[in-house]
Amino acid sequence: MDHTPASPPHLLVIGGGFAGLWATRALAKSPLRITLLDRSNHHLFQPLLYQVATAGLSAPDIAAPLRHILRRQRNVEVRLGEATSIDPTARQVALADGSVLGFDYLLLASGATHAYFGHDEWAAHAPGLKSLDDALHLRRKLLLAFERAEACEDPAERTAWLSFAVVGGGPTGVELAGTLAEIARHTLKDEFRRIDPASARVRLVEAGPRVLASFPEELSDKARRQLERLGVEVSTGVPVTAIDDGGYRLGEEYVPARTVVWAAGVAASPLARSLGVPLDRAGRVSVEADLSVPGHPHVFVAGDLAAVQRADGPPVPGVAPAAKQMGRHVAASLRARLAGAPARPFRYRDFGNLATIGRMAAVVDVHGFKLSGLLAWWFWLAAHVFFLIGFRNRLVVLLNWAWAYWSYQRAARIILGGRREGEPSGDAPG
Amino acid sequence: MDHTPASPPHLLVIGGGFAGLWATRALAKSPLRITLLDRSNHHLFQPLLYQVATAGLSAPDIAAPLRHILRRQRNVEVRLGEATSIDPTARQVALADGSVLGFDYLLLASGATHAYFGHDEWAAHAPGLKSLDDALHLRRKLLLAFERAEACEDPAERTAWLSFAVVGGGPTGVELAGTLAEIARHTLKDEFRRIDPASARVRLVEAGPRVLASFPEELSDKARRQLERLGVEVSTGVPVTAIDDGGYRLGEEYVPARTVVWAAGVAASPLARSLGVPLDRAGRVSVEADLSVPGHPHVFVAGDLAAVQRADGPPVPGVAPAAKQMGRHVAASLRARLAGAPARPFRYRDFGNLATIGRMAAVVDVHGFKLSGLLAWWFWLAAHVFFLIGFRNRLVVLLNWAWAYWSYQRAARIILGGRREGEPSGDAPG
Repeated sequence: MDHTPASPPHLLVIGGGFAGLWATRALAKSPLRITLLDRSNHHLFQPLLYQVATAGLSAPDIAAPLRHILRRQRNVEVRLGEATSIDPTARQVALADGSVLGFDYLLLASGATHAYFGHDEWAAHAPGLKSLDDALHLRRKLLLAFERAEACEDPAERTAWLSFAVVGGGPTGVELAGTLAEIARHTLKDEFRRIDPASARVRLVEAGPRVLASFPEELSDKARRQLERLGVEVSTGVPVTAIDDGGYRLGEEYVPARTVVWAAGVAASPLARSLGVPLDRAGRVSVEADLSVPGHPHVFVAGDLAAVQRADGPPVPGVAPAAKQMGRHVAASLRARLAGAPARPFRYRDFGNLATIGRMAAVVDVHGFKLSGLLAWWFWLAAHVFFLIGFRNRLVVLLNWAWAYWSYQRAARIILGGRREGEPSGDAPG
Repeated sequence: MDHTPASPPHLLVIGGGFAGLWATRALAKSPLRITLLDRSNHHLFQPLLYQVATAGLSAPDIAAPLRHILRRQRNVEVRLGEATSIDPTARQVALADGSVLGFDYLLLASGATHAYFGHDEWAAHAPGLKSLDDALHLRRKLLLAFERAEACEDPAERTAWLSFAVVGGGPTGVELAGTLAEIARHTLKDEFRRIDPASARVRLVEAGPRVLASFPEELSDKARRQLERLGVEVSTGVPVTAIDDGGYRLGEEYVPARTVVWAAGVAASPLARSLGVPLDRAGRVSVEADLSVPGHPHVFVAGDLAAVQRADGPPVPGVAPAAKQMGRHVAASLRARLAGAPARPFRYRDFGNLATIGRMAAVVDVHGFKLSGLLAWWFWLAAHVFFLIGFRNRLVVLLNWAWAYWSYQRAARIILGGRREGEPSGDAPG
């Protein structure tokens, strides 16, 4: 990985999410040698990740191999690996496999992870949703809960297996709770002999005063009513104070529940700490106007890891369109830098806010133009399918959705995993 | 799970593969209470499992939840669980979770597992392919080998990462080797910067004199030539004598290879041993003409676990059509038994033999009518897609195939797993 003075400058991009990938693609014609480093071999369309967790889509439906996306961009090398620390002065990044990558420019776009607000012990009981592996783990957990309830002889135990809680009333929590209620009420209908899946309790728990706090209050109310119509019990204004193997505590009330899903907190990637620059409360890097790091003009941060203040509005939100815009802006900053031109400040272009709730229900807020219900859902579906990378994925995803909504079925209800690596599969039937 | 004399007799079916599921469905109208027990929640279309392993299909494309398939058959209860031993006299089956299921009639259809011919230590280095978890494990291993080769600085190490061996020249071995060569030659084209995936060595190793030994010699020759055209090196007549972390030994030659796949031996499910009846060399139960177990007329065995001799031909092969026929025959035997009629002997109806080799190549033998090449491949495709359970799967599978063959791409090239259960996903990018 040595860089001789004659070769073009080396840009290292950490993270093949929206920010990293969009920056990389925008630099296709620039005189740079680019290395794109990611822990996984694929770019993930994260806005539909909850659909993999709830068995509506297969993992490959919403992911594409980074190598494949970038195969024709000859100035890029994709590398599978995990960065563990960054030395911005020595311009080196250490990887988990012991190797070291040098760089002339660095774009750190490694995203966010779950935050348990100082209760890391909750992680084992309330998994979150960030990667495809998380989604398959969650799918397994949700589907197995109904299986355990069916096999269970003790009524109290059975009730606990049929008690689901989603912690966090943001878009992910709302999507998960709405879809989970749909599965219990419709998808699993007629499939069990000892339990009635429709009797499952699906609770959405939000410590703040309302769900979808980033939306206008009117749409929060609509979302709550749509959730309740789907069969979700919405609890706001009371924080979760404990989560263990048997259930969770909401204020003073202990609720037996075998399945708790975490959709409450995101924290920036721990990699940011190794930069040695001030971070905000959520662990994000407060970047300069051109998205470079204070004191290290050759290091940029984009995506969920960047804390960008705006003079004329709230901070830039951690959503896919913002990450793409930041990625493209870093590319523009770098091009300007290489050409000796001054850098421009990043300006976030807000296209509006949309969240889906469940079968045929969503809310949309585009600069004060508000929609909810079926029409909002069609708007949401069109926007998301349109932005899915790659023609094939889009078509298959559309078909899977059409099928799921037409038939109330979810095609991917296959429990995977649970076998330890290297262990032979034994007497797996048929 | 108690059975009072007033209720209908209880049939316990172990295994939701072709034999168990076809028997269960054929008993929809019989006065029986049926429990279908399986370790996984889905029926698997095993003939296409190699496509999941080689990233052509998603796991849910070839699987359907057993509960969903049987939701309208009211005399069936599906139970997720693993049988560990059978007491045919006490009419009880013990499960891994400690519970015990009683039965009046038992159908044991728990299938086959990998056999390493007394070399169980090879299992860790040469995984086999029986379940969806096996397939995802294999997919991960195959795709990661190219990643490791790309990241590797040492030429000898790199060569070992690009050296693949498939042990066993039966249909599964031939399919895997052919598809692997296709991936190396075509799918990964242009995606790597340091290695040429087309330089990978893909070797199919068969101890016997020819591949596809169950086919006429003429078709074995055709298959070999088609494999070689796809870039597979075919070695016959020499046994593998060792497999370790660094490679395998073929006769006297040690070949460094990081990826060895086991497609050589299948052995019957260990559950058969607990029956206490004589087993054949492969661990299968030699059944009576009506597929019941000698000395235990209320216990039946069907599918890969049953050794059925034929007066007028070779033993019944371990293929899907045979398993379905056996399943239906057990249902007929039971119906006769319940009606007080005599049982009829099982007669295998041989529809012919087909095997696919890779892109547009296959061999077909239907009662002496022989086909090979493109036409055989279309025949094979039509037969397999037609038999896939469920309309939705069939359509999606067809689309995925059309896309894969049109574009040389494989849609499911997503590396999953590798994260231990309960471990948070950390700084998963994007």
